[in-house]
Amino acid sequence: MAAKLYYFYQRGMAELPRLVCVAAGIEFEEINLTTRSDLLKLLEEGKLLFGQIPLLEIDGHQIVQTRAIVRYVAKKASGSLLGKNDAEEIRVDMIFEAGRDFTLPSLEIGFLPDEEVLPDLQNRVMPKYMPKFEKIAAENGSGYLVGDSFTVADLSVVEGLLVYVEYFGPDILQGFPALQKFFDTVTSLERISSYLKSPLRKKKNDPPCIAKVLEVLGKDRYQR
Amino acid sequence: MAAKLYYFYQRGMAELPRLVCVAAGIEFEEINLTTRSDLLKLLEEGKLLFGQIPLLEIDGHQIVQTRAIVRYVAKKASGSLLGKNDAEEIRVDMIFEAGRDFTLPSLEIGFLPDEEVLPDLQNRVMPKYMPKFEKIAAENGSGYLVGDSFTVADLSVVEGLLVYVEYFGPDILQGFPALQKFFDTVTSLERISSYLKSPLRKKKNDPPCIAKVLEVLGKDRYQR
Repeated sequence: MAAKLYYFYQRGMAELPRLVCVAAGIEFEEINLTTRSDLLKLLEEGKLLFGQIPLLEIDGHQIVQTRAIVRYVAKKASGSLLGKNDAEEIRVDMIFEAGRDFTLPSLEIGFLPDEEVLPDLQNRVMPKYMPKFEKIAAENGSGYLVGDSFTVADLSVVEGLLVYVEYFGPDILQGFPALQKFFDTVTSLERISSYLKSPLRKKKNDPPCIAKVLEVLGKDRYQR
Repeated sequence: MAAKLYYFYQRGMAELPRLVCVAAGIEFEEINLTTRSDLLKLLEEGKLLFGQIPLLEIDGHQIVQTRAIVRYVAKKASGSLLGKNDAEEIRVDMIFEAGRDFTLPSLEIGFLPDEEVLPDLQNRVMPKYMPKFEKIAAENGSGYLVGDSFTVADLSVVEGLLVYVEYFGPDILQGFPALQKFFDTVTSLERISSYLKSPLRKKKNDPPCIAKVLEVLGKDRYQR
């Protein structure tokens, strides 16, 4: 049975689970919640341990919490999406966590006014992390951030970079040659590249999409 | 060689690494940064992958990012701090992630005015998570949150509960009998209980402690 991913019709907290399934070659059916009662139904069925989505149903498990989903899928994948030995595993995990700090603030785009979110991303988040990722990519040299193959560390950083390039243009990578090489390497991988061009990859948050998310959540406005 | 934990003389982001070392029976020496130059020295030595502490030096590795530290130590521990099988591992990871959402907001105590932080904890964070943890503890029944022994899921939730009990009193557990049993079980474990009574467990954040943290960071005020 194919895995089932439950979320809004939106990137949000489900984008990393989607990307890891794509990278691991795990097929999934996407179930997009569009009404309040869709969410209430999941809650009544007791499928949401903390009342939140995304939820991935896979191998008889009901997994919530974005990064718990990612670790399960990554562990299950053939190859070594979590690193090939102790030293790689540690490095992957450290970068995976930093990728969260790099990407999470971008998830508020569309929920808060652009003039509030975008300058914070450009003036605080990107300058804080991009030079560090550049150094890591340059020292590693393979086009990936750890070792000589793709891991969830790459996924977690490229998730943010994709958004920042989309909003601020490809020039943000100027002066970051190793990060440019990394970005090109990862987004050219056949599975990732096909996904990004497919309709499975959602568009930017727009007002109708935000309104739908809030409706499903039963909220009249976004709160941190 | 004993492990070395570098952090401020403060609980903060190092408390979970301390707790997991204690739970795993791994001895560590604590190196508390007290001046700006202590931090600059670590930065110059290239030990901080993202310029941040805590840092745990262990088995020749230099591990940063709180939860990467915890996972490494938990994996290394004898026993099964990450769960004993696939189903337990998933459940531990989901609760470990939710424990982060439950505990992180409490780390701002002392850095922001009490009248800003404390009501948010009592009115938003605690009511959101405590009923869910109660349900999980009640269904599991063993006194732990997953399976019949201690895991990092327990650690991550008890870290927050310890703070909330300290600030709001033991009555916050009234109406949560399974969570009360869980709290008593975990805080009575010999290693945890000894640690909490020892001078290794830091006191609440107070103004001199906050001032010292900001001094080491080279900041004149706290910013999110």
